[in-house]
Amino acid sequence: MKSALLSDFGTEIVIPICAVIGIVFSLVQWYLVSLVKLSPENGGYSPKNEKNNGCHDSLVEEEEGINDQNVVVRCAEIQNAISEGATSFLFTEYQYVGIFMVAFAVLIFLFLGSVEGFSTKSQPCTYNKEKMCKPALATAIFSTISFLLGAVTSVVSGFLGMKIATYANARTTLEARKGVGKAFITAFRSGAVMGFLLAANGLLVLYVTINLFKLYYGDDWEGLFEAITGYGLGGSSMALFGRVGGGIYTKAADVGADLVGKVERNIPEDDPRNPAVIADNVGDNVGDIAGMGSDLFGSYAESSCAALVVASISSFGLDHDFTSMCYPLLISSMGILVCLITTLFATDFFEIKAVKEIEPSLKNQLIISTALMTVGIAIVTWTCLPSSFTIFNFGTQKVVKNWQLFLCVAIGLWAGLIIGFVTEYYTSNAYSPVQDVADACRTGAATNVIFGLALGYKSVIIPIFAIAIAIFVSFSFAAMYGIAVAALGMLSTIATGLAIDAYGPISDNAGGIAEMAGMSHRIRERTDALDAAGNTTAAIGKGFAIGSAALVSLSLFGAFVSRAAISTVDVLTPQVFIGLIVGAMLPYWFSAMTMKSVGSAALKMVEEVRRQFNTIPGLMEGLAKPDYATCVKISTDASIKEMIPPGALVMLTPLIVGIFFGVETLSGVLAGALVSGVQIAISASNTGGAWDNAKKYIEAGASEHARTLGPKGSEPHKAAVIGDTIGDPLKDTSGPSLNILIKLMAVESLVFAPFFATHGGILFKIF
Amino acid sequence: MKSALLSDFGTEIVIPICAVIGIVFSLVQWYLVSLVKLSPENGGYSPKNEKNNGCHDSLVEEEEGINDQNVVVRCAEIQNAISEGATSFLFTEYQYVGIFMVAFAVLIFLFLGSVEGFSTKSQPCTYNKEKMCKPALATAIFSTISFLLGAVTSVVSGFLGMKIATYANARTTLEARKGVGKAFITAFRSGAVMGFLLAANGLLVLYVTINLFKLYYGDDWEGLFEAITGYGLGGSSMALFGRVGGGIYTKAADVGADLVGKVERNIPEDDPRNPAVIADNVGDNVGDIAGMGSDLFGSYAESSCAALVVASISSFGLDHDFTSMCYPLLISSMGILVCLITTLFATDFFEIKAVKEIEPSLKNQLIISTALMTVGIAIVTWTCLPSSFTIFNFGTQKVVKNWQLFLCVAIGLWAGLIIGFVTEYYTSNAYSPVQDVADACRTGAATNVIFGLALGYKSVIIPIFAIAIAIFVSFSFAAMYGIAVAALGMLSTIATGLAIDAYGPISDNAGGIAEMAGMSHRIRERTDALDAAGNTTAAIGKGFAIGSAALVSLSLFGAFVSRAAISTVDVLTPQVFIGLIVGAMLPYWFSAMTMKSVGSAALKMVEEVRRQFNTIPGLMEGLAKPDYATCVKISTDASIKEMIPPGALVMLTPLIVGIFFGVETLSGVLAGALVSGVQIAISASNTGGAWDNAKKYIEAGASEHARTLGPKGSEPHKAAVIGDTIGDPLKDTSGPSLNILIKLMAVESLVFAPFFATHGGILFKIF
Repeated sequence: MKSALLSDFGTEIVIPICAVIGIVFSLVQWYLVSLVKLSPENGGYSPKNEKNNGCHDSLVEEEEGINDQNVVVRCAEIQNAISEGATSFLFTEYQYVGIFMVAFAVLIFLFLGSVEGFSTKSQPCTYNKEKMCKPALATAIFSTISFLLGAVTSVVSGFLGMKIATYANARTTLEARKGVGKAFITAFRSGAVMGFLLAANGLLVLYVTINLFKLYYGDDWEGLFEAITGYGLGGSSMALFGRVGGGIYTKAADVGADLVGKVERNIPEDDPRNPAVIADNVGDNVGDIAGMGSDLFGSYAESSCAALVVASISSFGLDHDFTSMCYPLLISSMGILVCLITTLFATDFFEIKAVKEIEPSLKNQLIISTALMTVGIAIVTWTCLPSSFTIFNFGTQKVVKNWQLFLCVAIGLWAGLIIGFVTEYYTSNAYSPVQDVADACRTGAATNVIFGLALGYKSVIIPIFAIAIAIFVSFSFAAMYGIAVAALGMLSTIATGLAIDAYGPISDNAGGIAEMAGMSHRIRERTDALDAAGNTTAAIGKGFAIGSAALVSLSLFGAFVSRAAISTVDVLTPQVFIGLIVGAMLPYWFSAMTMKSVGSAALKMVEEVRRQFNTIPGLMEGLAKPDYATCVKISTDASIKEMIPPGALVMLTPLIVGIFFGVETLSGVLAGALVSGVQIAISASNTGGAWDNAKKYIEAGASEHARTLGPKGSEPHKAAVIGDTIGDPLKDTSGPSLNILIKLMAVESLVFAPFFATHGGILFKIF
Repeated sequence: MKSALLSDFGTEIVIPICAVIGIVFSLVQWYLVSLVKLSPENGGYSPKNEKNNGCHDSLVEEEEGINDQNVVVRCAEIQNAISEGATSFLFTEYQYVGIFMVAFAVLIFLFLGSVEGFSTKSQPCTYNKEKMCKPALATAIFSTISFLLGAVTSVVSGFLGMKIATYANARTTLEARKGVGKAFITAFRSGAVMGFLLAANGLLVLYVTINLFKLYYGDDWEGLFEAITGYGLGGSSMALFGRVGGGIYTKAADVGADLVGKVERNIPEDDPRNPAVIADNVGDNVGDIAGMGSDLFGSYAESSCAALVVASISSFGLDHDFTSMCYPLLISSMGILVCLITTLFATDFFEIKAVKEIEPSLKNQLIISTALMTVGIAIVTWTCLPSSFTIFNFGTQKVVKNWQLFLCVAIGLWAGLIIGFVTEYYTSNAYSPVQDVADACRTGAATNVIFGLALGYKSVIIPIFAIAIAIFVSFSFAAMYGIAVAALGMLSTIATGLAIDAYGPISDNAGGIAEMAGMSHRIRERTDALDAAGNTTAAIGKGFAIGSAALVSLSLFGAFVSRAAISTVDVLTPQVFIGLIVGAMLPYWFSAMTMKSVGSAALKMVEEVRRQFNTIPGLMEGLAKPDYATCVKISTDASIKEMIPPGALVMLTPLIVGIFFGVETLSGVLAGALVSGVQIAISASNTGGAWDNAKKYIEAGASEHARTLGPKGSEPHKAAVIGDTIGDPLKDTSGPSLNILIKLMAVESLVFAPFFATHGGILFKIF
């Protein structure tokens, strides 16, 4: 075994440098966005700002209304309202989440501490009986600390993402006055701020934590990386509340606003007369931005932890080869550099000049980052790994070559790209699947829904094969370590993925602000074009999130099994099989809860909006202002209240199953939830995306076929609107939340594995 | 080990006697139904028949129009049209199915024959190397024969069921003139004819086959019962075409008829002016009756085969204890007697006098049969089994007591009852779930669909726990034999289950005939009341079918694993895991195909119906007759064409996976498809049932709440109709077809297990 080219000292330097580069780059992007001046310092009209607006613009296509400072003031007002609503929701959410965090931290400490009866004596190591390892009490304390660190990092990531998005949306609207290219760059740069901040921040915190923990653990890496898994649990449990709470918030507001505004009152989307319109825009930021941010941060943290914990009991850990041990972090570091270069392709190397260039430009981001990253992975692999090493494989050690590990990471990366493209094919209205769904609107809402559901089911096929192949290759080459690094490969371009993903809601909000600020139809058309591309990229982002969740969850499952000292999970035992079938049921239970929650919250919103239309005189005529705050409050309260039962289902299931039925049944539950959940998640989010774009296809009327179905208000269009409304909770609440279900149950099991292995399975022990 | 009380000779006599009793009982019921005279012998009006009609009726509540012989003639005409359409469809279907049957029989022979290279020499037995067993070629030949026997029995069962149903529907309509009680008895008796004929026929053919095969096999019971598994495969593969083809047929016609008739032309359901009305009624018979009949026959045949093949390598088979070996058949024999008594409760011991007694009477059937059968199982267990015996358990032998086996069968039986009641709770409009869905119609079709989907997801929870507990108990007590007999326990009351299930479509058709024959509103109300109860029982029937399919499929899976000589199916191997995740995807792929098929076929039907309304002068005014035959032909052609791709998916998957990836991956696929498919099947059929009954709830307006949503034609009602139409393919095509998917793949794997174990896994062998 030849050791790696990169020295341990080099590793210690390279990782933080890359993280810092990512943070600096995101700050530069933020600075560039902030050059678009929004609120004049004196709070009103100012000639100074008029000069700033557009001062560097030599390439504007068509300038429109850029001298109207009233528009700027109105945009600033609306942005403030959205930002305040979002901040207030997140703060309310964090209060509850804070209580949960403290309670759960105590639980982790008690459960893990009790494994050896809170003894402070060192114990023989699990995988090397000759050596002494730190006591379980230390693991309990450090797991609790890393849990809290993960949770705080996740909360900060989500919060910053939301702040950036609300900071950027009105600026995008204003830039849209100067042309679609300017608006695109503003929206995309803002997405990039979030992407890089999150990726770099996650890496840096993890790196610092490992180094600090090492001061105590010394060469007991087994204990060190066991304790680190708390970081993944912290990140993911915050994502649960972000995704579920945010998802309920955004769709309650959206569905409620649409049902009264569009359907009953026949006023356009985002019309300022609609009392729920601010809540709707707030929802985009807390659900699609903050929620997605914590979700992907969670995946990133979990796959890193899974890889590290498996590596710690492999030759890397046993031989104390720090560079190889940090391979997962080095891949992520390389990812930041690759994404940085990729971003320049969209913002600097090329310039968007026409609407039709937007979607290709976003798609190119994916292709460029994947291609560059493949080279990046090769560099990292050949410089940081010995040519051959051994990997822990459920009780045995397996020899792995470095080129095999390269293939594991690369196949994860490319599987992600395939999932992205398949998602695009099934959800973009440029291709036949969505057009067929639109065509089915001819015979009414029922056929639209039937075709949409069938589309979602069908869209599962290729992604599952892609995931299966990635699993097979990486599993065969390097067991669970292979799966973990394949997940990391898929997530290595997370900064770019998040950038194009956050771009969507920012553009959506920009359009809303344009409508509310009463800007001209042309501006709205430009933001709509940005938004349409954003719809597809949002679907792609969800595809990535789900695909990576599947791999992450499998690798966590593998790490759990290793840590719980199970060597086989045999379907042919009753304990495992009932776990499997009940686990496969959990995503349905969870979806039932979240969908019903959206439904009930939307009904409350409908009542309030109707009440305001009926009781506020002059509202429909635009003479009186609606009471936006009450609607924001309804969404906030409903989502906080409604997120508790699904949250409890996810958090309690592993504990109950582990304590009462033991680790075999829990393994079954995890495997069942994984294989069943990933299918529902993909089909739900693609069905929803397809319905949304089928509606947009009819509205845009860009082709002969589309025009026969339209225009807005025709019978087929009405049918399409019904499909779109049904799809909302599917694609933005229940579908994406399932990622969290499958990941969180796995990481929770992993963290509590020593406890379950020692004290679990009470019921079977009794009988 | 004490041997059983019942001697082998006693067993040889008891089984055929019970089967014959079942057949005689069903003929008696048929005779009683035939007393309702429909078509006068001379083909027209006859005073003789007028006298016969109602001659024994002393208890008629209200006689209405029973002297109008024109009505009788019209009913006879309509019935003929329906019967002809159904017969013609089934014959067309059988032509294709016949080709498939021959081709597949050849495949079975070639694949199984090749296991030992078509050698005619005896080989050492697999489980007892000291003994010589018959060559693989014999297994090939006899498996082929039993496959053909199973297929023919299934086809005959489905065909007879359809004939009985079409024979009975117009008779039910005519009896409805005399009161709801008379009509109920006619419909129920007809259902019983089908139930008993199918149960007894299936038992008798299986029994005779075993005895004939024994002439060749002698004491090589291992080979004998291996060959018998072909019977299950034959039954189930016919069920595939019955369910899928019939399901597409019925829903294409139904959706097509509704979309133009109810929605566009605003004419009532079953209006004779609608050209698709006959096709719609034909569909009920070929889909819900013939399809359901072959489905449950398949389950019955498969669970018997699974139990027998496991028993043959347990102490029963090794010790040649014929009575114990025939335990599964004895349970079924007892089931026939129990169901016979149960039926008398509905038809003779009590009499239905009012509409509100219908549903309780049908529910009592379930409760009575379950309670009696529990005693029946105890009798069979203690008279036919030794007090202790050993069961083959994946390579080892496990000691089982007779009371443990009693519990296995009983828990299956009671789990079925629980699933039935949960299904009723979620699909009957007497309870809050359906009422909530109806209430959601207030805010439009979108919220109706969201709540309906959430209801379906939620309805999965308790049935899955019931199945899981049944699996856990029976698996723990008696390994895969326990699961197989638990499935048999659930199916032991199949005659009653089928009777109440077939009752539904018969009543539905009776209503259609009343409408088409222009009978008075009161008659239609009576048949509607029968139909409403039938809707719920149909949902219960589907619940049973799915629950038993899950157990059957698991027991077949276990038998397959035993036969392929695998001792563990470890999720922690890449081969198994990719099988698991791809298997879990298959139900989605399959559902996508079947739903899309219904959608496309319905669109064709819509075009034809529109064409007829537009081109046939006087059709809307009722002056001209529509061209029913073309619509029947469209449904027939579409369903034959569309059933091929989903059929191929189900039939080819085990072959491709087994040949290229081997038995481990195939095990994963089977387990994945099972745990994922059962959830989709339950949720799809309950969602559909709930939407249907939510619509009926609004239409009936029986409560204050329901009246605020109605009447027919109100906005909430329109929203409910959209939900109902979406639910049609879910509850009658894709949902129930999934039973077949999970069962058929398992039984096919079982039959081909020796081939896969010898020659399978080519891809992994190469790499």
